[in-house]
Amino acid sequence: MAAFSFHIAARDGAARTGEIRLPRGTIRTPAFMPVGTAATVKAMHTHEVKALGADVLLGNTYHLMLRPGAERVARLGGLHRLMNWPHPILTDSGGFQVMSLAKLRQIDERGVTFQSHIDGARHELTPERAIEIQGLLGSDIQMQLDECVKLPCTDAEAARAMRLSLRWAERCRTAFGDQPGRVEHGRALFGIVQGGANRDLRVESARTLAGMDFEGYSIGGLAVGEPQDVMLAMIDTVMPHLPDGKPHYLMGVGTPDDIVESVRRGVDMFDCVMPTRAGRHGQVFSRFGKINMRNARHADDPRPIDEASPWEPTRTYSRAYLHHLVKSGEILGMMLLTGINLAYYQELMAGLRAAIAAGRLDDFIARTKEGWARGDA
Amino acid sequence: MAAFSFHIAARDGAARTGEIRLPRGTIRTPAFMPVGTAATVKAMHTHEVKALGADVLLGNTYHLMLRPGAERVARLGGLHRLMNWPHPILTDSGGFQVMSLAKLRQIDERGVTFQSHIDGARHELTPERAIEIQGLLGSDIQMQLDECVKLPCTDAEAARAMRLSLRWAERCRTAFGDQPGRVEHGRALFGIVQGGANRDLRVESARTLAGMDFEGYSIGGLAVGEPQDVMLAMIDTVMPHLPDGKPHYLMGVGTPDDIVESVRRGVDMFDCVMPTRAGRHGQVFSRFGKINMRNARHADDPRPIDEASPWEPTRTYSRAYLHHLVKSGEILGMMLLTGINLAYYQELMAGLRAAIAAGRLDDFIARTKEGWARGDA
Repeated sequence: MAAFSFHIAARDGAARTGEIRLPRGTIRTPAFMPVGTAATVKAMHTHEVKALGADVLLGNTYHLMLRPGAERVARLGGLHRLMNWPHPILTDSGGFQVMSLAKLRQIDERGVTFQSHIDGARHELTPERAIEIQGLLGSDIQMQLDECVKLPCTDAEAARAMRLSLRWAERCRTAFGDQPGRVEHGRALFGIVQGGANRDLRVESARTLAGMDFEGYSIGGLAVGEPQDVMLAMIDTVMPHLPDGKPHYLMGVGTPDDIVESVRRGVDMFDCVMPTRAGRHGQVFSRFGKINMRNARHADDPRPIDEASPWEPTRTYSRAYLHHLVKSGEILGMMLLTGINLAYYQELMAGLRAAIAAGRLDDFIARTKEGWARGDA
Repeated sequence: MAAFSFHIAARDGAARTGEIRLPRGTIRTPAFMPVGTAATVKAMHTHEVKALGADVLLGNTYHLMLRPGAERVARLGGLHRLMNWPHPILTDSGGFQVMSLAKLRQIDERGVTFQSHIDGARHELTPERAIEIQGLLGSDIQMQLDECVKLPCTDAEAARAMRLSLRWAERCRTAFGDQPGRVEHGRALFGIVQGGANRDLRVESARTLAGMDFEGYSIGGLAVGEPQDVMLAMIDTVMPHLPDGKPHYLMGVGTPDDIVESVRRGVDMFDCVMPTRAGRHGQVFSRFGKINMRNARHADDPRPIDEASPWEPTRTYSRAYLHHLVKSGEILGMMLLTGINLAYYQELMAGLRAAIAAGRLDDFIARTKEGWARGDA
């Protein structure tokens, strides 16, 4: 069976479009990965997620290790089978959510211990355990365990966490090499660039990871509250030091504008809860920018969100109906808005891929931003 | 365009199977109507509701008149268009929910005034307004306004409410005759038998309504907390006095057992929130009886709910996964369990129709009850 491979088909400036090929399927890049936190993309059937253009999902190691539990998922045949998603799955390492969700966490050289936010049970996550869990889940693309600091932070704190993450990267690489099923399933392991908002630290991290020969490279610790220009500056800083022929994955990003600006700088993969979370809270992402469906101005509006959308609910349901569902707290409102948002994100990615292939990326981005600025009136 | 018509294709004892034909589609009877309270069958896409076998939905006049409002629905092209359900819709009159949900209600000969449970706004529902609202919604099968008393109640109270409902039935009949769009859309109006748990009152109600020549006849005021044998006795009492060639609709019923026993007695139509509400609370209806998916015994169970189900999620997802979703409070759990329950209800109705057509209803019911008693272990 074929192993993980990355093929760049076309470039436009620093941007690239291509394919990541895996035994379970091909990921068209630049790719947006919907987030399937607890073995479900919230409020979506998996066949819908596929139909609207997703080639790969992200699963959260932290959530899955706590519930239903990695060993249980393995006994049940793995995450793909459990959630009825036969296509590629990327898992994070759990590190980010341990920092943001868990209680009483303690971090040291060995790893991190913490209490579950669900039942207070004590857990340990080491680089070796993070890789073991991702193997038990059956993840196709796995992430090293890292320590992600909050921004802003001191350079000393950013340096300490970045260097710890580098040592953990080596331990993850070793553990991954021994993972049962790794070769026959063609799995990949990505390293994660850290270093806060400090350019020198980011370069040190990227160059050291590049020497470890990962299948792909992530940029972590961004989109954690810093201004967009800081995020873009860090991408610009890091990118020249990452292996060009490997996928570049910007973790946890972002808004449509964050995505187009990052694609322009050479990022190939994204994940973010934004389209799904916003959909559950009445917010729509569209060619016409963000729309708050709670707003009373939609109550009598018979127009669909976007009559030119490739996603049927986006061009079928009236804004009046979506407003009614959101105001009434109906589950169908969350289902439809989540799908509408994911469809827009995937439509945007398809547009970016086509524009890069045609050498018209700047023009595509300019027109896209005009649409957002025009609004929905 | 064809008007409403009812065609009985086969009988088995008192039970019948056939078709209600309407311009918007044909309803195979006995039929179960999923409840679409606020212009949505909760947690379900309309194409799913159709795919799993529903020919007709029920809409709640009370909910829709309050939000989004009947005049607004009419301006938006009617309920079918609003919720993307081009097939038949039956609406109740609003009376039942005024009694159970509204605040500060006052009932008199003219109608009922009440405060919205949503915003406290004052509303009036008369027989004429109930028909007007159902016309604005564009309902294919409309219900007379009635007063439904709580059981147990005194005979005097049951008689008063029943006779008021008869007078309202005449006013509804008159108002319906004048309804714009009634003829070209082939709409129908059903009368509702009341009379509490008193046989004489039920007979008086049924015979009087039979003389008014409705397109169909509902039995109301049952499944409101009384024992099943009281409900079945009332059906046995009423049935001989209803026009045989018209559809018989038992409102708000019920459990699978209620349904099979009522079909045996000549009921053609049912609606109930049970499969949808139970699905949102972790309860499954199946060939093997009721299953509580919250129970920890499912946590490691790789079996689907029913591998012989015609509904794909019922035979695809493991009990372990459904348990995980329910325990985690995931919206997808509500979506899948609602669909699984509606699929079972529709499978049951299809089985009843086939059994009546084949003259094997008693045998089918006996085998069905054996399955429920066997359990899911």
